[in-house]
Amino acid sequence: MNPTLEIFSQGEEIITGQTVDSNAAWLSQQAVDCGFTVTRHTAVGDQLSDLITLIQDISQRADCCLCTGGLGPTSDDLTAEAVGNAFNLPLEFDAIAYAQISHFFALRNRVMPESNKKQAMLPQGAERIDNEWGTAPGFSLYAGQCWFVFLPGVPTEMMHLFRESILPTLSRRFQLQPSQLVSIKTFGLGESDIQERIKAIEIPRDVQLGFRAGTDDVQTKLLFPFDYPITAKTSLISRFTDVLGHHVFAIDGLEEVTGDLAFEVDKLMTSKKLTLALIETASHGLLAAKCVGYEWLLTASYKQSIAQLGQNICTQDGLPNLITHAKTLAVSLQKTSGATCILIQLYSGDSESFHDKNKSIIAYNLLRIDDNFHQTSHSINGPIKRKQNQAALFTLDILRRYLQNKPINY
Amino acid sequence: MNPTLEIFSQGEEIITGQTVDSNAAWLSQQAVDCGFTVTRHTAVGDQLSDLITLIQDISQRADCCLCTGGLGPTSDDLTAEAVGNAFNLPLEFDAIAYAQISHFFALRNRVMPESNKKQAMLPQGAERIDNEWGTAPGFSLYAGQCWFVFLPGVPTEMMHLFRESILPTLSRRFQLQPSQLVSIKTFGLGESDIQERIKAIEIPRDVQLGFRAGTDDVQTKLLFPFDYPITAKTSLISRFTDVLGHHVFAIDGLEEVTGDLAFEVDKLMTSKKLTLALIETASHGLLAAKCVGYEWLLTASYKQSIAQLGQNICTQDGLPNLITHAKTLAVSLQKTSGATCILIQLYSGDSESFHDKNKSIIAYNLLRIDDNFHQTSHSINGPIKRKQNQAALFTLDILRRYLQNKPINY
Repeated sequence: MNPTLEIFSQGEEIITGQTVDSNAAWLSQQAVDCGFTVTRHTAVGDQLSDLITLIQDISQRADCCLCTGGLGPTSDDLTAEAVGNAFNLPLEFDAIAYAQISHFFALRNRVMPESNKKQAMLPQGAERIDNEWGTAPGFSLYAGQCWFVFLPGVPTEMMHLFRESILPTLSRRFQLQPSQLVSIKTFGLGESDIQERIKAIEIPRDVQLGFRAGTDDVQTKLLFPFDYPITAKTSLISRFTDVLGHHVFAIDGLEEVTGDLAFEVDKLMTSKKLTLALIETASHGLLAAKCVGYEWLLTASYKQSIAQLGQNICTQDGLPNLITHAKTLAVSLQKTSGATCILIQLYSGDSESFHDKNKSIIAYNLLRIDDNFHQTSHSINGPIKRKQNQAALFTLDILRRYLQNKPINY
Repeated sequence: MNPTLEIFSQGEEIITGQTVDSNAAWLSQQAVDCGFTVTRHTAVGDQLSDLITLIQDISQRADCCLCTGGLGPTSDDLTAEAVGNAFNLPLEFDAIAYAQISHFFALRNRVMPESNKKQAMLPQGAERIDNEWGTAPGFSLYAGQCWFVFLPGVPTEMMHLFRESILPTLSRRFQLQPSQLVSIKTFGLGESDIQERIKAIEIPRDVQLGFRAGTDDVQTKLLFPFDYPITAKTSLISRFTDVLGHHVFAIDGLEEVTGDLAFEVDKLMTSKKLTLALIETASHGLLAAKCVGYEWLLTASYKQSIAQLGQNICTQDGLPNLITHAKTLAVSLQKTSGATCILIQLYSGDSESFHDKNKSIIAYNLLRIDDNFHQTSHSINGPIKRKQNQAALFTLDILRRYLQNKPINY
């Protein structure tokens, strides 16, 4: 039997629906991956009595509880007080936490407001969780049958603290037999396209199939039992990758650490010692933004497709003129930038087509490398931010396919 | 006193984190807008006993409960059974529901699977909620002190049923007096800075103060009772805006519709008929990306700060050389782009400082407009993606301040 785990979120912004509780989903996934059975999520607001009752109930019910929120400096941050009340533990001043909070402000040349001192008060016996990402330290403690972990509600801080301070300690606190999760990451196929492609594959009863459609990829997830034989696992995975083809850009859960599409392109560009210069239109700077910190991206420009390229190129004849224009741009950009790879993204479609969620644009990508041209075009529809994001990914994907020696076209 | 309301979501996909529970947030917002006090969200999986206990608990606690999920045709859809068990109500065949489900399949030329018949079994005394958007009818009933509403988990179906069948009936079931929410949006102040600035303001007991710190702004939220006098409301809000000063970029909940910082800049640029050309470094394309669809942005370039500007500019003397260089870039970009406003963003700090979450960079912004220069500089720290985002916002904010006739410097 897996140990049970509950998720508990505190905050008026969640209770009132101003914030979608993505922390709960993220922590649940982590917990399931570790080998817990997640039994319940609860969110409450800033009422002390609600918090106390809930914490007491959970302490009788679950083996572990991951809590987020309520650790801030303001008067509506009541987690430590509620824990103290729930289990008769006085709040004690933690000098190390205090020094860390002061240091956080000193580093930023800011005076620590009086209110932040409150964050250094922890329930007696609690173990402090250092937070170098923000001012609120977390803490953990055993109460009833349950090990409680209290983390800040800011997602980046919460994720760092969980990964760095909680994850490494779980295996000595609990008997965990984690299932093995393999995620096949694809770009360019919808969830129903994937369903259609895999429908002939027979999936063993003890393997769980799931999907996660994000804005940047669709992940096909296979959850294998703890002791599933490696050869059977590998063979099932390759049946999936066979039918999903060149849309697969990474597989998570095998040996290699994988990331998003930009992360995979970074690995390839770095190992091949290549550099890139880029012109983007529909993606509006977002492709460069996805490559933050990657030094092989030498330069990137956003240009308006219509106004700056001339009405005649985009609206008269569509694609043929776009292609000619893109080739001229690519050759010129290669000279001025000195980069080994050049990407040009253009699109046909007027401003109205770009803005209107019911209209589509044709995005056109040109890759120039080793004096050769490679090109793709894709119809992109939906709200403007979806068009922007899809355009960035399609342009990045031509580079990924080239570098992985896969066919450029879909 | 507002009536209290809880949200209850059923489904393994939520509990295991495969799906973020956006239904809960959407329903909460609707409920708050109607005048309920939302006290708790709970999500559980497909265990019958968990469902029964939870429904019984809620019936003793809340005045209203909105439930989603568990109405489907499969064996893990247990809501009706759990309700029947919890309150000793036998499930009864509902002939009209059955006819509707059959009709749904007939309309689509599909044979109704045997399993869908289950969806026509409702707890005795429940009021059916017709669903023309899918196969699962919802239902509502009173139990304990609570009025329960059970809706399907598919977001589009849930939203339609709520809007069309639930919302119109709420005012005759409950005494509702919706509160008025005002959100003051600021950039450049942390939550604790705000707390410090507003501490002298006396907040009436019936006004609720809250904060929401996002990656792009911090919102100070004031929740006023239904019948709060307009003059007292306006006067309290202006005490807040006085101390928050030029950091306030928008106020939500008064007459005007507001958005994020880029949205507010868009309003100003459009009404003043200005255009912009931009060079960004630390924000890596993200500033252009935030302005997607705004046609006053004529062109934007990302350049690497170190490699492309020369080691001597960035690392030898720091700011003075950066400023000279930025001015030269601005004048030249104004000529080539023809834009009325020019923004140049540079930073001092090497690649390591940019990547290392424990190091900071100094971002420098130059705005050129009407042959004048305006400049700011800010220390930015934290993980690389935070630096990127803050850099984009600081650069955008110099433009917002200029256009709103506010002091440029902090």
